[in-house]
Amino acid sequence: MPRYKIIIEYNGTPFVGWQKQDNGLSVQEAIELKIQHITKQPVSLYGSGRTDAGVHALYQVAHFDLDIQLDTHKFIRSLNHFLADLPISIIDVEQVDDNFHARFDAKKRSYVYKILNRKHPSTLLKDRAWHVIYSLNINEMREASKFLIGKHDFSSMRASSCQAKSAIRTIDSIEISKERDIICITVTAPSFLHNQIRILIGLLVEIGKGALAKEMIPEILAAKSRTSCPYTAPAHGLYYLGAEY
Amino acid sequence: MPRYKIIIEYNGTPFVGWQKQDNGLSVQEAIELKIQHITKQPVSLYGSGRTDAGVHALYQVAHFDLDIQLDTHKFIRSLNHFLADLPISIIDVEQVDDNFHARFDAKKRSYVYKILNRKHPSTLLKDRAWHVIYSLNINEMREASKFLIGKHDFSSMRASSCQAKSAIRTIDSIEISKERDIICITVTAPSFLHNQIRILIGLLVEIGKGALAKEMIPEILAAKSRTSCPYTAPAHGLYYLGAEY
Repeated sequence: MPRYKIIIEYNGTPFVGWQKQDNGLSVQEAIELKIQHITKQPVSLYGSGRTDAGVHALYQVAHFDLDIQLDTHKFIRSLNHFLADLPISIIDVEQVDDNFHARFDAKKRSYVYKILNRKHPSTLLKDRAWHVIYSLNINEMREASKFLIGKHDFSSMRASSCQAKSAIRTIDSIEISKERDIICITVTAPSFLHNQIRILIGLLVEIGKGALAKEMIPEILAAKSRTSCPYTAPAHGLYYLGAEY
Repeated sequence: MPRYKIIIEYNGTPFVGWQKQDNGLSVQEAIELKIQHITKQPVSLYGSGRTDAGVHALYQVAHFDLDIQLDTHKFIRSLNHFLADLPISIIDVEQVDDNFHARFDAKKRSYVYKILNRKHPSTLLKDRAWHVIYSLNINEMREASKFLIGKHDFSSMRASSCQAKSAIRTIDSIEISKERDIICITVTAPSFLHNQIRILIGLLVEIGKGALAKEMIPEILAAKSRTSCPYTAPAHGLYYLGAEY
């Protein structure tokens, strides 16, 4: 059976997340239903990274198998046509090696988190950035991020629902930029724990506000307990940038 | 009467433009109505720059007079509350000198134009960027922009409806950047002719596509006729960045 790699962009606002769930429409299910509608075949999508309810993706990578040879260009247009009512865009589809696995073969994953840092809200960034009214010190946040880069036990920075066996993860980079009143924080790692990035962003914002000293980070990590890091940035500022293979 | 400067962000999609018109709701009218609702006073907004239907603003500067002393912080929150159904956000309001004029005192105006340069469309940039499927050569566009910077007669690059007496304008800068598949072109000048930026962007895209040689620009300008430059980029890629005083 031919295997296809698919690149997907979505606005996470109306979805229960990437992953199929009983409590509403997921991105995965929405796309599977439309592919089934077009091809008349059952299909399962395997995503490279899960995203929670409200989290967006600029470049979700997934794969699926189909018992037919697709004209990929026609297929993308057809799929985008049937998805037109939902905030999902198909960016690319290509046939790949049968052994390719969107999740297991991913070497690195990247996310960007957007913060609107000003007094009053933004209509263009509604549901698309975290509105933080306290003035954030970017330099402090950059310095703080150095404590988080590298290999650490991130037990203090994972959701209680996280099912990973080990909490040891390696963060390759955290880059912080600002343009006008928008701060973008890009985080790259081979893999992440559940909610790790939202907790990490929540922590950096506390430090940027001046409510917490960056020197506390080694202590927070050493505590290996979520109670030492009780911050979570909202889902709607987070964008999945995709995986590298 | 106290004079107030107001900073406004809007998504231009549902509006007939900044300026009040008979054929639908403008941003100016929408805000005037809400200020009148709050203050029970007639009010006129003077914007620093007009935007056409579908054009957005990140930082429109305007002024208005009111026969009362506003608590500006409360007023902003109240105005944002009453504007909540519309894609308009008030970013700031402050009392200014009685002589301040948002339009006449503006020394420079800036706009950014966003182009999504890839094969397939984007849901997150729907109505927010021009989707150009032909691969654009940014370097050629940068080189081309040098022919447009400076003082020129822009008769070839103004709408037929443009009412300015002189078509001579001075473009201070055109900056072109690309991040992932999004090209941003920022243009700054003391003032612009009607549709000048959208025609300029249309021209740069023709050159970026390879459909026109940049060396044609001096000839196009010398022709002083719109027929020599029959390109217009769509409104929905354009964002007004505001005025400098």
